[in-house]
Amino acid sequence: MRPSGRAPDQMRAITIEPNFTRHAEGSVLIGFGETKVLVTASIEERVPPFLRGKGEGWVTAEYGMLPRATHTRSSREAAKGKQSGRTQEIQRLIGRSLRAVTDLKALGERQITLDCDVIQADGGTRTASISGAWVALRLAINALLRDGKLTTDPLTQKVAAVSCGIYEGTPVLDLDYPEDSSAHADGNFVMLQNGTFAEVQATAEGATYDEEGLLRLLRLARMGCAEIFAAQDRAVAGAAQ
Amino acid sequence: MRPSGRAPDQMRAITIEPNFTRHAEGSVLIGFGETKVLVTASIEERVPPFLRGKGEGWVTAEYGMLPRATHTRSSREAAKGKQSGRTQEIQRLIGRSLRAVTDLKALGERQITLDCDVIQADGGTRTASISGAWVALRLAINALLRDGKLTTDPLTQKVAAVSCGIYEGTPVLDLDYPEDSSAHADGNFVMLQNGTFAEVQATAEGATYDEEGLLRLLRLARMGCAEIFAAQDRAVAGAAQ
Amino acid sequence: MRPSGRAPDQMRAITIEPNFTRHAEGSVLIGFGETKVLVTASIEERVPPFLRGKGEGWVTAEYGMLPRATHTRSSREAAKGKQSGRTQEIQRLIGRSLRAVTDLKALGERQITLDCDVIQADGGTRTASISGAWVALRLAINALLRDGKLTTDPLTQKVAAVSCGIYEGTPVLDLDYPEDSSAHADGNFVMLQNGTFAEVQATAEGATYDEEGLLRLLRLARMGCAEIFAAQDRAVAGAAQ
Amino acid sequence: MRPSGRAPDQMRAITIEPNFTRHAEGSVLIGFGETKVLVTASIEERVPPFLRGKGEGWVTAEYGMLPRATHTRSSREAAKGKQSGRTQEIQRLIGRSLRAVTDLKALGERQITLDCDVIQADGGTRTASISGAWVALRLAINALLRDGKLTTDPLTQKVAAVSCGIYEGTPVLDLDYPEDSSAHADGNFVMLQNGTFAEVQATAEGATYDEEGLLRLLRLARMGCAEIFAAQDRAVAGAAQ
Amino acid sequence: MRPSGRAPDQMRAITIEPNFTRHAEGSVLIGFGETKVLVTASIEERVPPFLRGKGEGWVTAEYGMLPRATHTRSSREAAKGKQSGRTQEIQRLIGRSLRAVTDLKALGERQITLDCDVIQADGGTRTASISGAWVALRLAINALLRDGKLTTDPLTQKVAAVSCGIYEGTPVLDLDYPEDSSAHADGNFVMLQNGTFAEVQATAEGATYDEEGLLRLLRLARMGCAEIFAAQDRAVAGAAQ
Amino acid sequence: MRPSGRAPDQMRAITIEPNFTRHAEGSVLIGFGETKVLVTASIEERVPPFLRGKGEGWVTAEYGMLPRATHTRSSREAAKGKQSGRTQEIQRLIGRSLRAVTDLKALGERQITLDCDVIQADGGTRTASISGAWVALRLAINALLRDGKLTTDPLTQKVAAVSCGIYEGTPVLDLDYPEDSSAHADGNFVMLQNGTFAEVQATAEGATYDEEGLLRLLRLARMGCAEIFAAQDRAVAGAAQ
Repeated sequence: MRPSGRAPDQMRAITIEPNFTRHAEGSVLIGFGETKVLVTASIEERVPPFLRGKGEGWVTAEYGMLPRATHTRSSREAAKGKQSGRTQEIQRLIGRSLRAVTDLKALGERQITLDCDVIQADGGTRTASISGAWVALRLAINALLRDGKLTTDPLTQKVAAVSCGIYEGTPVLDLDYPEDSSAHADGNFVMLQNGTFAEVQATAEGATYDEEGLLRLLRLARMGCAEIFAAQDRAVAGAAQ
Repeated sequence: MRPSGRAPDQMRAITIEPNFTRHAEGSVLIGFGETKVLVTASIEERVPPFLRGKGEGWVTAEYGMLPRATHTRSSREAAKGKQSGRTQEIQRLIGRSLRAVTDLKALGERQITLDCDVIQADGGTRTASISGAWVALRLAINALLRDGKLTTDPLTQKVAAVSCGIYEGTPVLDLDYPEDSSAHADGNFVMLQNGTFAEVQATAEGATYDEEGLLRLLRLARMGCAEIFAAQDRAVAGAAQ
Repeated sequence: MRPSGRAPDQMRAITIEPNFTRHAEGSVLIGFGETKVLVTASIEERVPPFLRGKGEGWVTAEYGMLPRATHTRSSREAAKGKQSGRTQEIQRLIGRSLRAVTDLKALGERQITLDCDVIQADGGTRTASISGAWVALRLAINALLRDGKLTTDPLTQKVAAVSCGIYEGTPVLDLDYPEDSSAHADGNFVMLQNGTFAEVQATAEGATYDEEGLLRLLRLARMGCAEIFAAQDRAVAGAAQ
Repeated sequence: MRPSGRAPDQMRAITIEPNFTRHAEGSVLIGFGETKVLVTASIEERVPPFLRGKGEGWVTAEYGMLPRATHTRSSREAAKGKQSGRTQEIQRLIGRSLRAVTDLKALGERQITLDCDVIQADGGTRTASISGAWVALRLAINALLRDGKLTTDPLTQKVAAVSCGIYEGTPVLDLDYPEDSSAHADGNFVMLQNGTFAEVQATAEGATYDEEGLLRLLRLARMGCAEIFAAQDRAVAGAAQ
Repeated sequence: MRPSGRAPDQMRAITIEPNFTRHAEGSVLIGFGETKVLVTASIEERVPPFLRGKGEGWVTAEYGMLPRATHTRSSREAAKGKQSGRTQEIQRLIGRSLRAVTDLKALGERQITLDCDVIQADGGTRTASISGAWVALRLAINALLRDGKLTTDPLTQKVAAVSCGIYEGTPVLDLDYPEDSSAHADGNFVMLQNGTFAEVQATAEGATYDEEGLLRLLRLARMGCAEIFAAQDRAVAGAAQ
Repeated sequence: MRPSGRAPDQMRAITIEPNFTRHAEGSVLIGFGETKVLVTASIEERVPPFLRGKGEGWVTAEYGMLPRATHTRSSREAAKGKQSGRTQEIQRLIGRSLRAVTDLKALGERQITLDCDVIQADGGTRTASISGAWVALRLAINALLRDGKLTTDPLTQKVAAVSCGIYEGTPVLDLDYPEDSSAHADGNFVMLQNGTFAEVQATAEGATYDEEGLLRLLRLARMGCAEIFAAQDRAVAGAAQ
């Protein structure tokens, strides 16, 4: 029995509010249950030094957590003067995931930065970030297409992410914080709409897992991502109205 | 004529949504028009080193702006590894303003941190932060009183803040971003409900101002703060239901 | 009765020693009583990135305090690896105050940096810094005029600053350290020779103040600045000999 | 055809030289072909703050790369003043992998730090680090057992790691640098001797991969780790002589 | 012929103004010609962690240069966020030199910090710092003896320092900036009153030097230090009046 | 009697293994007894900003110590976020020493960086670094000559370094760690093959030393460097085969 009463293969409610803020070229507030992440997509007509003059664009991400997004206040990274290893690991993962569905040559020499800021945390902040970032990126690219700055769509397909883990011996989908903090294994799965993986990261937290365990997590992830893809479609459609 | 069409003594719409997040002891999303700040109040049962063993508490503030709260993206302070002078100046002002209405001895040996994170910026983020922080602090202290951790209320009265400035020769109340960026003088006024000031900061940005000009700004500020005090009352009442 | 025995409207002795060091284009050692600040003005034939190619100059300031300028030693900011919020707030104030009397277009594409280093602190270090910085800036610009690098004087008038506060219920001028550390309200007033203000910053430290209180501080400031303007004139005249 | 001429399921030569340095409680120089990593295990009779007084120990890792371990010199992280996201990600992975085979209660209140410093890089530095760190940890714990500081062995079994990827369409084992830089997918697999996984991290670098592709990589990893386990045994046996 | 017209064995004018500032337990403004350094000695009744509980004291130094002490402005180390290698090297040298004449056991569990801040630089700032620091330390210890906090004098003798170098083929004493920047060899010599050395640092800057060259520099240093010892005596005597 | 049983004028075994790593243009593992330093020479076809366009090259050094090179683990400088004063002092010394034997004009507009990383420390790491760095630099320059990128050899002669000190009253050559930590005086001597000095740094650690003492250390250093020069020759000859 899960603390939330959910079935093992049951996602939390997925909410995606497009255009949550007004300055960014794309923005959403995404919720996986009580986990809430604000994602903005910012377009800049420049690329990082290593890409200058190569006719290619770049998609990158930054991640942050407001100090009191969590149960107890954690110190502000800007005040400490550096980003933690966890923060850097997460933002690298988000960036790679979005680049997996972007044709960087088709994007042209511009950079899109996805800022993922966790307003409230209850497990799964990195997977909500990736799933929301796709919508923000989609909206920003739609603006470029609408304005005639792009004529070919550089977004090749949808990407979504979800966490799965083994909680009290049972593989479960979309771990919330109480599950996450006591799961024996915990994985983050980044999937494309065509059923392939951009990233699998599965970590044993106590007991290790075998190949069969990993496969069961993969299948749960597939179910969860299908739901997220549908929610992404609804959000993009809603934003267009 | 103001860019927004407002009268010189007209505030923007004030919106205060209490309990915007669920982990903090107090939280609000405050809006002064399109400026939106999320403020959380976090109680910790410890005080900074300089107060240890003195039987007194502390109220402090931190301020941040999400990278794309602004028209163009600014870099993340956590990534740059330090907070700007502007950020530090603002968070020191917020902390002083709230301490002006808190009896630190009555608070006991605990610290309350007000985290003010700007979700969307359109001028007046520091004054919205102070005004919202009072509500978050009020809610957090109400929780301490309700739980019996405090028997005397350490909050002595309300505090609010508003900006005023001289825009195209006319003193105006509650500057938005287009006004702020071209005003000749720009002041932030922190007032208590009893009509006294906790802080006056008035800066000439082009033409300097005389005593009469300052007095006209003070009177506008008084009008604006009266509206904010009323909105604070409504928010606290709403949170109690 | 003030700890120093001064009358409420009495400044400390103002001493300004021009050309205190020899490498800077302008330099002074300014004293407000026992507060001693060394100010140097350095001219560089370049401007910060945001001004490049705009045909305008820049005036900026940096502030520091020697570790044992104070009663007890404080740690060296260079060793701690960052400047405090207080330091940044002060140097931003000094820079703004000097820019209020400089025609940046007339200055041309060059930068003048005012370094204000406190040798000995006894209250009022930021106001002594501003008042001394004007003399250093005047001397540096005189050198540019003398050398034919400038033909029009970009300094539009004099600027000075003084602190005033409410000490044991009485408004007093030019607070020294014993007064500063126990005043109920404490303000810094930056005035131009024409009687207008470039900056007013008045902070309640315990009891808040009302409009009448603020006006009384403004009037004291006006008296203090008149004395400082005279001392600045004498110093500039002395340097010319 | 692999650039090195190896068969798809062929590891590079594994060399493990125990006791490479003399001060550390355990040390090895491990080579996976031309990749050479020096790993030392340092025992300290203290634990990090979050574990104090809990009767448990801690195993952690730090990772570094000498500036000229690579084809072109990269800047020294100590000189830049911070560790890259990549470095932090790798050292977190190494630490988790070793903790997966350590009974921290049995270790008692002491910390063992595995320092993994890459002397020469040719792909697979993190997997060589994990595989070598196990030997260094084994040697350090053997010393504690020999000295009577421990009576129960806290190391529950062996752990090893290897990278696999899809190179020119073919799944291959133990990628070297030329393969790593052009592989379509790249995974790091951390396995225990009992056949279970402590960590799977598989990233698409260009084309995404499907479940079948992931399973083929898992099977190659299993073959590679079997070879590493044997090399670890030989190294521990050699050190004992 | 030296640029200043001095004889090869001629020091610049040595000026030592004791009690230059009033808060420090000891302070001097020392001048070697146009090089001016403010040195303060601060006593704290605590020792660094590595000495706690050992019944010994510590003497340490910090060094800084005001941004415009030099011909062209250099950036402020506090603003850059770190001290240069040169700064650290110099402050380590000053600390060692003073410890060479202090009986740390006799000092008791307290720390004396010598802050050496260069007001104006014209070569020889580190040797002026050491020579002035001895006077500041002497004054601070005299205060401890006078107040009865010490009954035995922990200062065992005098220490002074001077630079010597080979300028246009001739060994010269006390290099000023024009000499320093073109000397072929440049040494700093820290001597005790008894004729022994606490430190010799002689660096070839272009042509290397032989043993005979080094000996000639040593002899010049001995002459220079004799003059400095006399000036130190006069300063201490003057301060006592 | 020295702890190691060596005669006062006896060096430890000098071992120099050329081409220890394969990516660097020059590399050696140098040992002075149990002190082992890996030195690599990296050629880059660019110079630091202060030399751009001047037709000159640059030789510089960086120094690091692996965390467990020492008896007890010290923290990693990359993790602490800054290099210690000791590290910076040493790397500045190494750079100066190598530049003393390099004709920077003949080198052309390129930079050679000597990375000296201490694998195991037992006293004398800086002198072993300098002595090994010369071999790495020689090998790198030989490669430039062989490839026709240089036609004139910019290395003017050999440089070596050794430490000497006064241990229990006796001047001894090449201090190991037990001697170093209790010597009364400790010097580092950097010599050229022609018998001149590039650098002498002699520090009293307890008792100061007189001129005669210094001369005896100089003579020991001369004997030690003669041995190192011979070992350098053998290493370069060995690398050529």
